[in-house]
Amino acid sequence: MKRTLVARSIGALGLVAMLACQGAPPAEQAATGSPPANLTMFAALPDAPPPLAGNPMTPAKVELGKMLYFDPRLSRSWLISCNTCHNLALGGVDLEQTSIGHGWQRGPRNAPTVLNAVFNIAQFWDGRAKDLAEQAKGPLQASVEMSSSPDRVVETLKSIPEYVERFTAVFPDEADPVTFDNMAHAIEAFEATLLTPSRFDSYLRGDAQALAADEKAGLDLFVSKGCAGCHNGVNVGGSNYYPFGVVQKPGSDILPPGDKGRAAVTHSASDDYVFRAPTLRNVGITPPYFHSGVVWDLSDAVEVMGNAQLGMALTPDERTSIVTFLASLTGTQPKVEYPVLPTHTAATPRPVWQVDTAPSGQH
Amino acid sequence: MKRTLVARSIGALGLVAMLACQGAPPAEQAATGSPPANLTMFAALPDAPPPLAGNPMTPAKVELGKMLYFDPRLSRSWLISCNTCHNLALGGVDLEQTSIGHGWQRGPRNAPTVLNAVFNIAQFWDGRAKDLAEQAKGPLQASVEMSSSPDRVVETLKSIPEYVERFTAVFPDEADPVTFDNMAHAIEAFEATLLTPSRFDSYLRGDAQALAADEKAGLDLFVSKGCAGCHNGVNVGGSNYYPFGVVQKPGSDILPPGDKGRAAVTHSASDDYVFRAPTLRNVGITPPYFHSGVVWDLSDAVEVMGNAQLGMALTPDERTSIVTFLASLTGTQPKVEYPVLPTHTAATPRPVWQVDTAPSGQH
Repeated sequence: MKRTLVARSIGALGLVAMLACQGAPPAEQAATGSPPANLTMFAALPDAPPPLAGNPMTPAKVELGKMLYFDPRLSRSWLISCNTCHNLALGGVDLEQTSIGHGWQRGPRNAPTVLNAVFNIAQFWDGRAKDLAEQAKGPLQASVEMSSSPDRVVETLKSIPEYVERFTAVFPDEADPVTFDNMAHAIEAFEATLLTPSRFDSYLRGDAQALAADEKAGLDLFVSKGCAGCHNGVNVGGSNYYPFGVVQKPGSDILPPGDKGRAAVTHSASDDYVFRAPTLRNVGITPPYFHSGVVWDLSDAVEVMGNAQLGMALTPDERTSIVTFLASLTGTQPKVEYPVLPTHTAATPRPVWQVDTAPSGQH
Repeated sequence: MKRTLVARSIGALGLVAMLACQGAPPAEQAATGSPPANLTMFAALPDAPPPLAGNPMTPAKVELGKMLYFDPRLSRSWLISCNTCHNLALGGVDLEQTSIGHGWQRGPRNAPTVLNAVFNIAQFWDGRAKDLAEQAKGPLQASVEMSSSPDRVVETLKSIPEYVERFTAVFPDEADPVTFDNMAHAIEAFEATLLTPSRFDSYLRGDAQALAADEKAGLDLFVSKGCAGCHNGVNVGGSNYYPFGVVQKPGSDILPPGDKGRAAVTHSASDDYVFRAPTLRNVGITPPYFHSGVVWDLSDAVEVMGNAQLGMALTPDERTSIVTFLASLTGTQPKVEYPVLPTHTAATPRPVWQVDTAPSGQH
């Protein structure tokens, strides 16, 4: 039953992605050993981000992207930056049920972690942004998040001489380098560096001691119970879309009826309540859980998943064991030097505190 | 007229502080030269923070203080940290007219910079906190800022094992090291490290080439016009209290009649509209200006000061010259590695989004 439904929800693109994840082990694995034979549905985190489509990474671009990521002046209020909701001090999330944005408005969905997000098949819970560059443009404009606009952002960046210099250096072949697209490309380049290698990766690469016995037992359960049917690939999730409630829909507190997920993107009724499976990397430090963000305890979340996706009531011991394994997915967090941002000028659009538009936008 | 009024507003403590600033030059000056003879009302920024009263600094305490400074979970919403309003990417301020806090409420005063604040005579615009440790407790509890409470903060910290370990290591002689006071002491220790040496300091230490000719001309004007009557000492301000409007009260937009400043602290009518002179270090990057935060242009602020404090209409050229000098007070900003914060537990009080108390508190 489960397998059939899961297979149905995997589109052509998803299959390609999964095959890529399950193909020949990357060079890093070969170098240090082989993954356990039953774990080929996973892939160790590479040491470096993958090439970004149409966006070659350079150190200067990454540095510019870091500045933009932390710059609250990209928001209408000058108070909210990318880092506000995707806080690199807190596992790349805000630890809020759903994010708080401009005017203290709440967005409709829980903020997914930015860490390792470059390896997701697409961005947002409904996958409506094909990559991190496209994603970055969303919250900037969403009236319940940063509440700015492309024009305002570009006017802001062009008013700050150091930003103009940096964009010019980073995009040297462009006559007009300070654009909303280039801002997004720089942010994408920085975000792509935010990788968190974990002990699970060492284990996948053949270091049998990298996981403790109880973690290995939890991993065995994770695979044998079927969790890895959706949570697989390099991000232990993030690689495809699945109905929330493959077997049994959770309650309306966890699955609010008004948010139909991917159906709003594909306009297909068969995608009602379909969401991208989240990565489970760093899941132990990034509550609360689900797109609705209403479940704070990871064991509770595992219980919900067992019922909704697998049609089985996991025992308390099984849940504890799986949670023990999941903790091994908490990786080494990125080291980031906090940027010193360039000074604005009289031409920079001033902060606007007021809320003057109708809510829109979501993670 | 000006001198008389200024002298009147200097209390005994202030005199001691000023004398300390104008006393024998520190060792750093002697090592590299002597300050120009007419500049003895200033003092170069020391290389290290001064000893903190009752709060010996250690690297572990500074590191703990940095974590607390950046931890939004000290706020009721989990969204606001010290760094939100005193952003180290932005000169230690939020660049807002007045700060935005819990529930998107606005505080009544502009956020002063945390940079070099350890050298201020006292903290807040009205000096009601004697030091940075006392200051740190204010915004944490103010309902329009972080909206927490000592009990909630201590409960939060005690629920996070790594914080308990760190407090225990930093305050080893205490039976109950995780306290609101110790939190404040750790934050004070970190903040005391946030010093921004500038070219003006090199000049004071005898490097005649550290300032350009137009900056020296501006400095001469700054002294000869009387600006240095209040803006002196190591922080070029911050060392004492003065009426805003020594000669002529500015308009009610700049000096709102409802905020009587230090009078609320001393309960003396003679302190009506008396405020601590702000430091001018980094003034070029920390608009908007005055406790009311309504003036964005530094030249405009200098004009207001000329009229209100000196009773003179500075010419546009004079204002430009003074602003040119003030830019030399923008110092090298602190390098800070963004902290990775320890994970909360099930015992940690969850974020509260709602606004449920009457506004209180101000910078």
